[in-house]
Amino acid sequence: MTLDTHKAVVLLSGGMDSCVTTAMANRTHQLAVLHASYGQRTESRERRAFHDIADFYGLRERLVVRFDAFKQIGGSALTDSAIPVPEDGEVLRHGSIPVTYVPFRNAHFLAAAVSWAEVIGAKAIFIGAVAEDSSGYPDCRPEYYRAFERVIREGTRQETQISIVTPVIGMRKSEIVRRGVELGAPLGLTWSCYQFDEEACGACDSCRLRLRAFAEAGIPDPIAYRARVAP
Amino acid sequence: MTLDTHKAVVLLSGGMDSCVTTAMANRTHQLAVLHASYGQRTESRERRAFHDIADFYGLRERLVVRFDAFKQIGGSALTDSAIPVPEDGEVLRHGSIPVTYVPFRNAHFLAAAVSWAEVIGAKAIFIGAVAEDSSGYPDCRPEYYRAFERVIREGTRQETQISIVTPVIGMRKSEIVRRGVELGAPLGLTWSCYQFDEEACGACDSCRLRLRAFAEAGIPDPIAYRARVAP
Repeated sequence: MTLDTHKAVVLLSGGMDSCVTTAMANRTHQLAVLHASYGQRTESRERRAFHDIADFYGLRERLVVRFDAFKQIGGSALTDSAIPVPEDGEVLRHGSIPVTYVPFRNAHFLAAAVSWAEVIGAKAIFIGAVAEDSSGYPDCRPEYYRAFERVIREGTRQETQISIVTPVIGMRKSEIVRRGVELGAPLGLTWSCYQFDEEACGACDSCRLRLRAFAEAGIPDPIAYRARVAP
Repeated sequence: MTLDTHKAVVLLSGGMDSCVTTAMANRTHQLAVLHASYGQRTESRERRAFHDIADFYGLRERLVVRFDAFKQIGGSALTDSAIPVPEDGEVLRHGSIPVTYVPFRNAHFLAAAVSWAEVIGAKAIFIGAVAEDSSGYPDCRPEYYRAFERVIREGTRQETQISIVTPVIGMRKSEIVRRGVELGAPLGLTWSCYQFDEEACGACDSCRLRLRAFAEAGIPDPIAYRARVAP
């Protein structure tokens, strides 16, 4: 096992937040990027975004992991085709947990990141979770990540030390856009839409949050939309 | 979502500890059983043991989840064919972390159990972890499970309450055998060997621990062995 204090695993979904997280982590660490395929509707489009962003940064250490459990378990509009993705923006106004919530999703991704980090000797895991704008998903809050670090300390080899870094967790989406532009992050290569693969729908919660973020930042969103609903 | 205080998810690998855990849980809860396939050497044999035990108890709610990450990540003799399974019993004498340790394995299984429990409304997850006899795996100790419960509280819906129950964690393996026999658990259907599918090798750490446990309990082990090395 190589122990390299500068090596880090980044969870790179291919969305805006994880892209900007990668841009930030890339300034200080040698990156190994991990992507999760979990039977979500836009799986292949997100995987393409992952590879495009990794290519952009010249990152060769990549791992694409399939998570079968979510599709089997269901319970979310993202992985269960019987539950439609909402387009009414209701959740964004009320802040309750939406039907796009995938139960306990980030624990699966973090578990894979920790296993990989322990084997390749990485000492940090970067994840682009956002507390404020995250549609109320419970596994996007700072307390969650502190609790998970405790599980890592208890559940890995004594000599293993892995911290979880959440550089955008306290930022507004519009700040993330601005920071991404400052760092030259390839936002045009990212994908956020929950529904479509070619043009973003512009109506699902994820598209609405993204469009609002770019609008607030005063920066044009470089990707193509089928329609743009007022945020 | 059905909320049933008596419903529980049991992680059932098909080994002795999880079989006795199932026997114990079955007295108090309505069980849904979860099995993990993760590219381990004896994957299909363990899956058969899972179904045999579930059949024995008449449990119909079953989930077999494939975890691809371990095989891709490697780093363990159980999932990496380049690392041989030790047969010298060295680890059992010294108590260090063996090469059969799969980095952070139980976190992956618990994550799936929590996602499933949240969707089906189960309030408890049973896992047959054993602290003392567990070859020093760090994710088999009580502190680990208390830390994981905290992650569950922080990372699930506010109304979700899921506890982790580890009924055999403080028991010696020989006590687990005796308890299993008392409860009429089908120990003859279980599988423990790390190496073989038809007859157990009798020489790997898992076979040695099992043979020692039955010997200490003064009970004959009902399964077939290729050879029986003195513990």
